[in-house]
Amino acid sequence: MNQQIDLNSDMGEGYGVWDMGNDLELLDYISSTNIACGWHAGDARRMRNLVTAAVAKNVHIGAHPGLPDLNGFGRREMVITAEDAYDFVMYQAGALQAFTHAAGAKLHHVKPHGALYNQAVKDIELARGIARAIHDLGDDIILYGLASSCFVQAAAEFKVPIWQEVFADRRYLASGLLVPRTNPRALLTDEAEALAQAIAMAHQGTVQTIDGTTIHLQADTLC
Amino acid sequence: MNQQIDLNSDMGEGYGVWDMGNDLELLDYISSTNIACGWHAGDARRMRNLVTAAVAKNVHIGAHPGLPDLNGFGRREMVITAEDAYDFVMYQAGALQAFTHAAGAKLHHVKPHGALYNQAVKDIELARGIARAIHDLGDDIILYGLASSCFVQAAAEFKVPIWQEVFADRRYLASGLLVPRTNPRALLTDEAEALAQAIAMAHQGTVQTIDGTTIHLQADTLC
Amino acid sequence: MNQQIDLNSDMGEGYGVWDMGNDLELLDYISSTNIACGWHAGDARRMRNLVTAAVAKNVHIGAHPGLPDLNGFGRREMVITAEDAYDFVMYQAGALQAFTHAAGAKLHHVKPHGALYNQAVKDIELARGIARAIHDLGDDIILYGLASSCFVQAAAEFKVPIWQEVFADRRYLASGLLVPRTNPRALLTDEAEALAQAIAMAHQGTVQTIDGTTIHLQADTLC
Amino acid sequence: MNQQIDLNSDMGEGYGVWDMGNDLELLDYISSTNIACGWHAGDARRMRNLVTAAVAKNVHIGAHPGLPDLNGFGRREMVITAEDAYDFVMYQAGALQAFTHAAGAKLHHVKPHGALYNQAVKDIELARGIARAIHDLGDDIILYGLASSCFVQAAAEFKVPIWQEVFADRRYLASGLLVPRTNPRALLTDEAEALAQAIAMAHQGTVQTIDGTTIHLQADTLC
Repeated sequence: MNQQIDLNSDMGEGYGVWDMGNDLELLDYISSTNIACGWHAGDARRMRNLVTAAVAKNVHIGAHPGLPDLNGFGRREMVITAEDAYDFVMYQAGALQAFTHAAGAKLHHVKPHGALYNQAVKDIELARGIARAIHDLGDDIILYGLASSCFVQAAAEFKVPIWQEVFADRRYLASGLLVPRTNPRALLTDEAEALAQAIAMAHQGTVQTIDGTTIHLQADTLC
Repeated sequence: MNQQIDLNSDMGEGYGVWDMGNDLELLDYISSTNIACGWHAGDARRMRNLVTAAVAKNVHIGAHPGLPDLNGFGRREMVITAEDAYDFVMYQAGALQAFTHAAGAKLHHVKPHGALYNQAVKDIELARGIARAIHDLGDDIILYGLASSCFVQAAAEFKVPIWQEVFADRRYLASGLLVPRTNPRALLTDEAEALAQAIAMAHQGTVQTIDGTTIHLQADTLC
Repeated sequence: MNQQIDLNSDMGEGYGVWDMGNDLELLDYISSTNIACGWHAGDARRMRNLVTAAVAKNVHIGAHPGLPDLNGFGRREMVITAEDAYDFVMYQAGALQAFTHAAGAKLHHVKPHGALYNQAVKDIELARGIARAIHDLGDDIILYGLASSCFVQAAAEFKVPIWQEVFADRRYLASGLLVPRTNPRALLTDEAEALAQAIAMAHQGTVQTIDGTTIHLQADTLC
Repeated sequence: MNQQIDLNSDMGEGYGVWDMGNDLELLDYISSTNIACGWHAGDARRMRNLVTAAVAKNVHIGAHPGLPDLNGFGRREMVITAEDAYDFVMYQAGALQAFTHAAGAKLHHVKPHGALYNQAVKDIELARGIARAIHDLGDDIILYGLASSCFVQAAAEFKVPIWQEVFADRRYLASGLLVPRTNPRALLTDEAEALAQAIAMAHQGTVQTIDGTTIHLQADTLC
């Protein structure tokens, strides 16, 4: 039983003059922040400011690298190679690592963003490119990736620690993967239901799937 | 007397499908490479490949960060703050540092590129932003900056080691700075003359200025 | 006396997932919209949507081209040539013109944005590059440019119609140019004062300068 | 029988300081140029220069819009909507149209580039987005698209003229589409064979497919 599940949140997702979300307030309610690194959102100034704030609040600092698609917020799937995935993560997480080290902290984790995350969930080659980058970024950096997905195998292969991620407000397939957003029932819109799902995942490590069965999920971090 | 002056060269200045220069051949003739970091030129794949090649040839690996101006190759001056200069260097050099550490090497130096270099030569605030970033990137990383320029003072203030850079094929002002390229006599076009100037700079630490006087220059690295 | 001064407003200044301002509501209160064209802000989707809305509201459609500086919102001055200014305006206004023609309308004006505007105000070469582009974009397209600035001369040289722009909330120099924002008294922060200035400019074509004198300004459009 | 098949070539595919190909020489050997519009390659300066040169050589001027992927040269497939395809073509071809009109010429055609082309070949929705944009760009602008592909149907639906494109150096499937590049036999590497295929396509409108059958192809323009 996982008494204290990690709570992670994507942050620093503005760009230039454009802000998004109330990052600084949110830092009081989470244990891990995933900081956008400039390719789908985020910029050097935001990365520096968020790192400083996260250090002050004792929140785990993670890189949130995405596809090179600022206009599409990194949400449009793109045909890339495993080597691209490696390079994209190294470059972006490396940039964040510099700000993190300058603040006297350590890069705690890497959580891929948007389409890069979704593509790697089901493409073991991309998941390997990402896991290998995290391995090369330094010791003990954790991959945050979808529970029961390709991330789990890739992390094991590269001996990268993984925290399996679960979602309170998404419905699950029997495979343990998420019901795609194209399905009208993909989201749990009822707050009580979402809370109940989060508690079941955190305490029993189980979730009821869209077809009514109950499956086991490792739930290390909740988005 | 500086018996063995460092020879540095800018590299990795292609982008995507576009190449520039014969980087791999050139590695045999230099002691330091300055690798473009993706904002004015360069990309993650080129950074990784060049780092690997430089490690194999035992060449010092340096970051070559520029202004965010891919279409202008970072050569167009841009009004930025000292904080911007800090952020731009941290982000880009941090990205290169990740590839360097992954290759088992250490970031040796940072040499700003193009307009970022030229603006900081005469703007102590920008030079300070750059020197502070190099300080924060890690211990003993060297700033490569124009001899007798604002870089020297900024490096001293932040206790960052500096290797003062001289140019074989540029004429000098009595101030020790370069004759601007807008002056038709800015360049030494005669190869023998350029060679003689390089030798005088490296061995005696002197250069004859455009108005005929001889001045002292610290010549640690030659571009 | 100008009974009905044009009211213009910058619009479409979001990007990708990031919005800025309530463009659609604002269309009810203005006579001219200046639509960002993708380099400092704006994108193809926003351009299309705003053109459609402006046609429906019978608002004059103008292009609002900026420097290629998305992260700096086109506000950072950049050293460019007159030919660059020409190319930048042609490209961006041309893109908007396509959406405008597709909506059955005509490009009414071009108002440069941010640093491109401010640099051309005092640099006749840049103002000429911009005026020449507007000339080449089609007949009778109007340049919106600061009253009494280099735009006026450049427009005359290229026989481009100009609507001289005035600002309700900015203080003026005796030269007719704006008090720079670096001056703490640059802005009229009192609303009544700003309204009075707007009325005086629109009705008498006069403004009281920062040193107390009254000067004449041609006030065709109010930002 | 098509006595004089159009010969088209992609041009202006450099960016900033990086050149690609000998565009100006090539203009003597072709009847149509497809000019890159800045998203996958190309920039405003190159667009202007090529338009001027093409007008002087009496070569048909076409827009060559691509996906927003400069680092990947627009060759990486990306999940976009039909509306995106419309917007991407309008924006880029509109920008080129401005330079074309300024040179006293008319935009003759639009040929999508790289992944945008390849995706639309087999996705009727994307092909429709592109055809609708060409319709909206002005009268009689021609779509250059792969023979026997979705482009043909989409062009018919929007009453856009189409010149069906054939390739001398690519092998064909029985469907009339190209053998994918992932197939080792995709390319005709023998020059004589490629020439023979080009002549058969241009004169008889036929091509021998990879499985030995002969099919009809409408061959209006040869890449």
